[in-house]
Amino acid sequence: MLEELRAVLGEVLVTDAAALEAVRADKSGHRSAAAPLAIVEARDVAEVQHALRWASAHGVPVVPRGAGTGLAGGAIAGAGELVLSTARMNRILEISAADQLAVVEPGVINGDLNTALAAHGLWYAPDPASRAISSIGGNIATNAGGLMCVKYGVTREAVLGLKVVLADGRLLELGHRTVKGVTGYDLTALFVGSEGTLGVIVEATLRLRPLARGRLVTVSAAFPAVTDAARASSAISARGITPAAMELLDAAALDGIGEHLGLDLGGRGAQLLVQTDGAAAASEAEQVVEIVAAHGGTAELAADEAEGERLFAIRRAFHPAMERRGTVLIEDVAVPRSALPEMFAVIERIERDHGIRIPTVAHAGDGNLHPNFVFDAPGGDAEVPAHIWAAADELFRACLALGGTLTGEHGVGLLKRRWLRQELGDDSLELQRRIKAVFDPAGILNPGKVF
Amino acid sequence: MLEELRAVLGEVLVTDAAALEAVRADKSGHRSAAAPLAIVEARDVAEVQHALRWASAHGVPVVPRGAGTGLAGGAIAGAGELVLSTARMNRILEISAADQLAVVEPGVINGDLNTALAAHGLWYAPDPASRAISSIGGNIATNAGGLMCVKYGVTREAVLGLKVVLADGRLLELGHRTVKGVTGYDLTALFVGSEGTLGVIVEATLRLRPLARGRLVTVSAAFPAVTDAARASSAISARGITPAAMELLDAAALDGIGEHLGLDLGGRGAQLLVQTDGAAAASEAEQVVEIVAAHGGTAELAADEAEGERLFAIRRAFHPAMERRGTVLIEDVAVPRSALPEMFAVIERIERDHGIRIPTVAHAGDGNLHPNFVFDAPGGDAEVPAHIWAAADELFRACLALGGTLTGEHGVGLLKRRWLRQELGDDSLELQRRIKAVFDPAGILNPGKVF
Repeated sequence: MLEELRAVLGEVLVTDAAALEAVRADKSGHRSAAAPLAIVEARDVAEVQHALRWASAHGVPVVPRGAGTGLAGGAIAGAGELVLSTARMNRILEISAADQLAVVEPGVINGDLNTALAAHGLWYAPDPASRAISSIGGNIATNAGGLMCVKYGVTREAVLGLKVVLADGRLLELGHRTVKGVTGYDLTALFVGSEGTLGVIVEATLRLRPLARGRLVTVSAAFPAVTDAARASSAISARGITPAAMELLDAAALDGIGEHLGLDLGGRGAQLLVQTDGAAAASEAEQVVEIVAAHGGTAELAADEAEGERLFAIRRAFHPAMERRGTVLIEDVAVPRSALPEMFAVIERIERDHGIRIPTVAHAGDGNLHPNFVFDAPGGDAEVPAHIWAAADELFRACLALGGTLTGEHGVGLLKRRWLRQELGDDSLELQRRIKAVFDPAGILNPGKVF
Repeated sequence: MLEELRAVLGEVLVTDAAALEAVRADKSGHRSAAAPLAIVEARDVAEVQHALRWASAHGVPVVPRGAGTGLAGGAIAGAGELVLSTARMNRILEISAADQLAVVEPGVINGDLNTALAAHGLWYAPDPASRAISSIGGNIATNAGGLMCVKYGVTREAVLGLKVVLADGRLLELGHRTVKGVTGYDLTALFVGSEGTLGVIVEATLRLRPLARGRLVTVSAAFPAVTDAARASSAISARGITPAAMELLDAAALDGIGEHLGLDLGGRGAQLLVQTDGAAAASEAEQVVEIVAAHGGTAELAADEAEGERLFAIRRAFHPAMERRGTVLIEDVAVPRSALPEMFAVIERIERDHGIRIPTVAHAGDGNLHPNFVFDAPGGDAEVPAHIWAAADELFRACLALGGTLTGEHGVGLLKRRWLRQELGDDSLELQRRIKAVFDPAGILNPGKVF
């Protein structure tokens, strides 16, 4: 059966053991029980269409995959599945300064796109922490966020149009090259965050911004307790200041990063990093300093942009620092901004009750927290232990009770399926399944993910 | 049959002739052939649910309606239809400064919401030209735009969550109180712009911004030819300046407004109005003045905000000015910003070829044009004459050929249905119909609209 596909695709169809082993995992720490059938490393739209026609004809489940940097298991493939990788479709097809847009293939790495855009004075704003390694296709499939959504929006707000291949191989064009448009339902928005369950993204038209952020001013503030830092960040939002980035690190996160980077970051309950940009950067930063002081924190203004960058490099070292310590389950809950202090209090309570540490960083301006559960996985078995899931379960329930959501920017994938019904409710979940069936009636696209 | 509904709803069910006559029309100039069955003027969610359960049981088509200010005929009701009006559901349920959100019923008037928000230092950014008379529910149903989308986004970007009642009467909660969230498909975005075909919006959670726009600086620029003004506006966008509003008025629009307001606006080919805000307002305005001069225009800086307001009042007088002249078909095409000069050239050609004038204003920063076709409607018959449709048809085709869209912010409604397939293509249109069927399998919601 596979030979039929190989006859057409040739070396684009990959079946070597090491490659198949790699696609059993992503960056979530999770691993499938067995290797998949094969990988199609598509180089163009026609190959994607061919693979999907073949899979449809034979009823073979297909797992779309980009750079494989997902944190929820959405691109993990197992026994009997075909991986459809768009990692090799990595050309930037057009950059238009006049229309402030770029047309790209899905395999383009987020950071590479911005390198190319800088020469045109342009900027693609969504910047997941993984920007150096994650691809635009995957960013769109998960509606990726990042450090600067608080001011510049999430991926959905930066996608004007998409080309997608449906499960049956048909190519569909969605959206516009225009910045506005209301002709029919917004299928582009429906595909953003759909985690490979509706179709395979083969091209994206992205909305760009002028690369004119002005001077960046960074404030770094230490607090005795994480709840004070959370209250300060809520107060900054409530004051009407919109920082370009506002990141909160708790004591356990600071300990881990300090150990990893060889820095002394201990002795404080939390650190808040705030970056302002644009013409009001300096005056906004001054107000931030005042608010920090009023909440019991000690703020310092970075002397220059280079020092600001060094401070944010501490934040960006969080994931590598955690990975050094063991296998990591990175959570991604979001709460209304005003509930941030309460959510941190909940995390402290769960730490005490379960006798574990949960190092946490937050995109505080968005109310989006990444509590990290670190555990030992003897013998390379990355299954999350039951006692960790029990603590995570408490975290999810508390977050929902605060009016929050299970996932702010990573997606549901495999790891959060079991809580989906709790957030969406029966009716909404059933409607979502039916929408899935409109696009993929045989259910061959990423089965078992999300739902 | 109707008595069954009256028994439960009492005076909420309206059948008097004048009220039924009023809902045959909206602000599009179009009028249905006959009056509908009745109007449910719902005051709460339970009444909406009851009306829809009744309509489902009896197979009665339902036309959801807000303030009735639509420009595409989406809320027009005809023979045998039940109008479900949410105009009386007009309470602001919550304003949260801490979370920068408001929870409102759908009948709240856009302008009234902003009046209430101002006291909290908050602002709901989407500002359709109809803001004084249009309701939030209708704004969401059409994904309304306005003058300030260029910098602050369209309605979709300001809707965090919705409560909707489905055709069968079930109440559904969509979205979040959080600013980020990727749990399942983005059904909130699917409902935004769905023109009453998927469900009835009964509550909305709206994302607000701090009311801190700083000083507003207004530049007014006269040009000898509209294509020069269009080139100047494209150049302003391409330079990376993002004005809060950038409006373009052609000579025919200026003539009409001048006549209406008793001002001398003649003798110029076009006027470009640019407003900048925020900390960089003054320096951006200076750059705008330079770009205008480089494109053959004559720019003046408004002396103060009051003068700026007076200049924008000229723009806002466009629709009343046109209505004085006859019956108006207001079009709403959008093109990529770089194609704006070409689109204006197309309009001039169509004017010549068809021997008509097409007064046009544009949200130039978005590439969104409103060409107006004014015609005589003897005896109150508001049907658009064939020769006007012929000219509009040429306009639509030219817009699509330039990579544009039929409707930037008004919706498809009744008036643009016949061009829908041309923009979307067969496959996309068929998928949209199937999505409609997921939510409304019997097809009772706003039948004949959009599709």
